Amino acid sequence: MKNVIVGQSGGPSSVINSSLAGVYCRAKAMGADKVYGMRNGIQGFLQESLVDLDTVLGSNELVKLLRKTPAAFLGSCRFKLPDPEKAPAVFEKIFELLNKYEIKAFIYIGGNDSMDTIRKLSDYGQSIGSGICFVGAPKTIDNDLAEVDHTPGYGSAAKFIAAMTKEAIRDEMVYSTNKTIYIMEIMGRNAGWLTAASALARGEDCDGPDLIYLPEVPFDLAAFRKKVDDLLDVKNNLMIAVSEGIHDANGTYICEYVSTEKLVDAFGHKQMGGTASYLCSYCEVEFGCKTRAIEFSTLQRCAAHFASQTDVNEAFQSGDKAVEAALSGRTGLMATLLRANDEPYVCEIGLADVHHISNVERLVPLEWITEDGSQISDDFIRYALPLIQGESQPVIENGLPKHLVLK
Amino acid sequence: MKNVIVGQSGGPSSVINSSLAGVYCRAKAMGADKVYGMRNGIQGFLQESLVDLDTVLGSNELVKLLRKTPAAFLGSCRFKLPDPEKAPAVFEKIFELLNKYEIKAFIYIGGNDSMDTIRKLSDYGQSIGSGICFVGAPKTIDNDLAEVDHTPGYGSAAKFIAAMTKEAIRDEMVYSTNKTIYIMEIMGRNAGWLTAASALARGEDCDGPDLIYLPEVPFDLAAFRKKVDDLLDVKNNLMIAVSEGIHDANGTYICEYVSTEKLVDAFGHKQMGGTASYLCSYCEVEFGCKTRAIEFSTLQRCAAHFASQTDVNEAFQSGDKAVEAALSGRTGLMATLLRANDEPYVCEIGLADVHHISNVERLVPLEWITEDGSQISDDFIRYALPLIQGESQPVIENGLPKHLVLK
Repeated sequence: MKNVIVGQSGGPSSVINSSLAGVYCRAKAMGADKVYGMRNGIQGFLQESLVDLDTVLGSNELVKLLRKTPAAFLGSCRFKLPDPEKAPAVFEKIFELLNKYEIKAFIYIGGNDSMDTIRKLSDYGQSIGSGICFVGAPKTIDNDLAEVDHTPGYGSAAKFIAAMTKEAIRDEMVYSTNKTIYIMEIMGRNAGWLTAASALARGEDCDGPDLIYLPEVPFDLAAFRKKVDDLLDVKNNLMIAVSEGIHDANGTYICEYVSTEKLVDAFGHKQMGGTASYLCSYCEVEFGCKTRAIEFSTLQRCAAHFASQTDVNEAFQSGDKAVEAALSGRTGLMATLLRANDEPYVCEIGLADVHHISNVERLVPLEWITEDGSQISDDFIRYALPLIQGESQPVIENGLPKHLVLK
Repeated sequence: MKNVIVGQSGGPSSVINSSLAGVYCRAKAMGADKVYGMRNGIQGFLQESLVDLDTVLGSNELVKLLRKTPAAFLGSCRFKLPDPEKAPAVFEKIFELLNKYEIKAFIYIGGNDSMDTIRKLSDYGQSIGSGICFVGAPKTIDNDLAEVDHTPGYGSAAKFIAAMTKEAIRDEMVYSTNKTIYIMEIMGRNAGWLTAASALARGEDCDGPDLIYLPEVPFDLAAFRKKVDDLLDVKNNLMIAVSEGIHDANGTYICEYVSTEKLVDAFGHKQMGGTASYLCSYCEVEFGCKTRAIEFSTLQRCAAHFASQTDVNEAFQSGDKAVEAALSGRTGLMATLLRANDEPYVCEIGLADVHHISNVERLVPLEWITEDGSQISDDFIRYALPLIQGESQPVIENGLPKHLVLK
């Protein structure tokens, strides 16, 4: 038992591959013979779809390129591992394969659902007396994992969102003689961390969004109407940021005000979309001014060309920590990012029990949202600002970011 | 008569302020006493809404920051100057003001409609024997001006579109085990230059979009269906790029397939939107696979954080050339970017008669579009690649691009 296997799961981020690089480099440094990557996560592993990472990461240059490549290099999956009591055959198959490939450490880079996988595998392994160690490395742009100060992936998404907010506000302001309302729709079903990041645009050269609505606080259309009406009395160009997951006090998503069709993904999450479009149509009718819905869509989670260097580094360190723990015989854990100091910002990499993490969502503290639910306080800015510092320069070829791609 | 006045008009771009910097620096170098900026173009000028640029650009550092700031620093307008025969009072007012401020050179930075303004003012000026000179500096992300090889603004928008296309393709590919269709909607009512730029994503590490549809060729839904169907037989994840302005052989915009409401702006242009959404809904029904519409929206025209240095430089040079011509007594012209050599790329700044430019649209040559209208040829790549070279590094403050803002 001397080999390591690593997989990536859930949605893409700009730095999930930096975590993969951290796993690979530390595993090799600790003497792992083989470091296998599972293609498309546990789903691919079950089909023995593996890659020997030495064959694709055989130079420092390739590892560096991996760290600058967005989305999951190994491919991802949204495969929910069943409960071992209900489907023991799946677990037997997994452990049979782990033994076949002489795996000592199993690392899974992902969010809530991925940590659920780590929890189940670790618990099952212990129940059968397996010596294989299962440790997670955190990844989610949503920043909603428990037991951490923040998650790798969030800082880069926040940096891109804040930069694009500043640029979009500059764009809107050129027609300052006409009344306009731009509404930006930002990812986040239940947690508003990404939408809150638009507030980072605030500064000497930018007011930031005039209104910011997160899913943490029920959205009230009449109160929104009043806010917009009052603002239009004092300024011509409004920028509004909304989470895709904002909903009213009854739990009805605002995007459902137009459509009752509910799309549900493999984990039972509702698929969002159209919140900004709906509110734009509403404002056009109510206020008769030009509106524009801006959906950041997938762009916000894969904009590695403007990633946060702090985030890239911390992602690497959390991958490094995860495999170090697993190769040291520890299991059922996730690497964590903990803030040791605010100014100067110091982040320490720790480990937490994955049982406290899987299936738990960490939301934006309500005290960081203004009482009327339409703005973000400076406490959030102090929290988030260190996470977007430093620019990870892409490797450029022919004027464009170059990526490492697994064929 | 020793002063210069400069305005910006039409839609924003990442480099329109670099042109403004070029005008300012050359005007000062040529001994202009005052360089006035008109706020919100000719519309603001008519209300004497002017700014003495010395008061806001008084250091090299500020000029540098201006060059890195997207959208129109002076504000813009979409004010169509009437014909002088029909509204002589407007022209009398303009020339009265020009004389009041002792203007020798009038520079307007913009696209087709702005060059129409230059044409009318220059013709009127000559008809009354005025010595004031009117010269345009080109600006449009749409790249659709006549008499030039390309326009300032295009290179940066093309670079951002190509980079985001690469990143979005990486994003989509993580779920390579499932069939998905992503459709990117890119600006362009009549000219497909911006959408064609998505083809720049092609390279060793990226296939680029599988299908690319420009407004230059009528769109046929049945042929599109067949193409997608055939592609889904050989690959799981399709990326499709469409111009907002694609329309069928009858001239009906594809976005109108869902809505018959037609919004029209001040120049009679139809407001586009929803093309990708429509095609996604269509594909979902036809092929039953997951789809995602990605609208680049205003992000594509103001992403100065990843602007092309080539574009930033050429924008500056075209502003420089325009004011040099006007202060040398020439009128009714526009600065032009002309390609003197392909490899190595050499761009020369020239001057063209604005009568050949205003109200003319330059489209993508049909021979650069494949016969079936669904892809872009390598001739386009050879054309566009030099325009996206070099990265204009933003001025960073607190982790975000800093902008120069006129209060």
